[in-house]
Amino acid sequence: MTVKQLSLPELVDACVRLGVRGVGLWREPVAAYGLDAAAKLVRGAGLEVTSLCRGGFLTAIDAAERSVALADNRAAVDEAAVLGTDTLVLVSGGLPAGSKDLAGARERVAEALSSLAPYAAPRGVRLAIEPLHPMFASDRCVVSTLDQALALASPFPSSQVGVVVDTYHVWWDDTAPAAVARAGAAGRIHAFQLADWVTPLPAGALTGRGRLGDGSIDFARWRSLVEAAGYAGPIEVELFNEELWAGDGVALLEETARRFAEVLT
Amino acid sequence: MTVKQLSLPELVDACVRLGVRGVGLWREPVAAYGLDAAAKLVRGAGLEVTSLCRGGFLTAIDAAERSVALADNRAAVDEAAVLGTDTLVLVSGGLPAGSKDLAGARERVAEALSSLAPYAAPRGVRLAIEPLHPMFASDRCVVSTLDQALALASPFPSSQVGVVVDTYHVWWDDTAPAAVARAGAAGRIHAFQLADWVTPLPAGALTGRGRLGDGSIDFARWRSLVEAAGYAGPIEVELFNEELWAGDGVALLEETARRFAEVLT
Repeated sequence: MTVKQLSLPELVDACVRLGVRGVGLWREPVAAYGLDAAAKLVRGAGLEVTSLCRGGFLTAIDAAERSVALADNRAAVDEAAVLGTDTLVLVSGGLPAGSKDLAGARERVAEALSSLAPYAAPRGVRLAIEPLHPMFASDRCVVSTLDQALALASPFPSSQVGVVVDTYHVWWDDTAPAAVARAGAAGRIHAFQLADWVTPLPAGALTGRGRLGDGSIDFARWRSLVEAAGYAGPIEVELFNEELWAGDGVALLEETARRFAEVLT
Repeated sequence: MTVKQLSLPELVDACVRLGVRGVGLWREPVAAYGLDAAAKLVRGAGLEVTSLCRGGFLTAIDAAERSVALADNRAAVDEAAVLGTDTLVLVSGGLPAGSKDLAGARERVAEALSSLAPYAAPRGVRLAIEPLHPMFASDRCVVSTLDQALALASPFPSSQVGVVVDTYHVWWDDTAPAAVARAGAAGRIHAFQLADWVTPLPAGALTGRGRLGDGSIDFARWRSLVEAAGYAGPIEVELFNEELWAGDGVALLEETARRFAEVLT
């Protein structure tokens, strides 16, 4: 999603040339290119698919809507398996229209996990719950903190359900370092993602993520935290940014790889 | 600040006609009208000044900047005393330019409180630390949760330092109800403010607060929480909203009073 402007073949080509060894994919461009063709393209180039984004949106109250959401999540699990990634990122979904009940919405996410985790496990796919920044609590993700994500994950084996640590979403939270330690000790850090926090936020808040080093986040510290917690997996960069998407994708990927090395050391 | 478009005399007149018995004031319009004149106007109309906004911005590293900030906060305490309110709202301030150290910034807030609380206490003014939504952590307020605000307040007597519970800033936080209970038990809820959470956020995020009832917040629940915690003080409405400011202030105040009654019962 960092270089949304690139086609899958362009992305794969640029990753290979830059020595980027893995890539997180999103479902929509994969579906547009064709699932099997995408799997063949990426794996044929020797790239690891680090994660698939995204399942989730599991907060509906209406039974028919819930059924559609669960079916869509099972499809996402299947797609992850075909792509050869063990990690499906879940964004829980926001409040249903007219509802003011965050706790109830989180309970419905828990119920959905009970149905999805046993489906995903035999397919070799872990469900990675991503807490989003609290500014998305109403319209996108009722899971706002790592503590909440861990509470949702805890009834399941860590091989089935874990969490995503995304610096953009958790950097402000002074309870997050302890949650990272607990998540790591339980083997539940399933993904580690980077984007910088920059202001002013754009209208809608979604597409204002900053390039690594442009904002307020101490990435070396967060890397130390997840590594001290035992995480040894890939580190993904996920910049949602309209301005960056409007520019040259290959140049952006090059710059991102350079900044990645700078900010993490 | 809900009806920023009204002059102080217009505001006082509208409050009296609508039966609104108290008003929270901001320093800038008070200074523009004249501090003594404002005090005379508001108190002469029989209105209680529920709070003064705002002191704070105490995170600077530079010694000269810190000194200026402390002097400005002492002035704010003096102004609160003249206005006859016992509550000065403090917004802590964001990260200094170039800093990525939230914990350090919070420590500097704690240091500043040690100097300001003894100044405010003999003047009959309590310092009320307001946690702002985490989306303001970098540029406005490094205190993002009630737990953090309570940790800052706890070294001081509750008559000197407490917290503001503003629904807009804490509604998303599942640890906030327990913090409200602790704050109330300690006598540290110094103000209770309402605004609704509505999306999409405007650019810059600051002026997108919703009218009561338009958004995701269950106000009756929050009122129950603070009252169960022992709070019996005023309930303020604080809508930062460019669109509302562009309209008729008296009509907005009338509508706000009507919605206030509706959402709290």
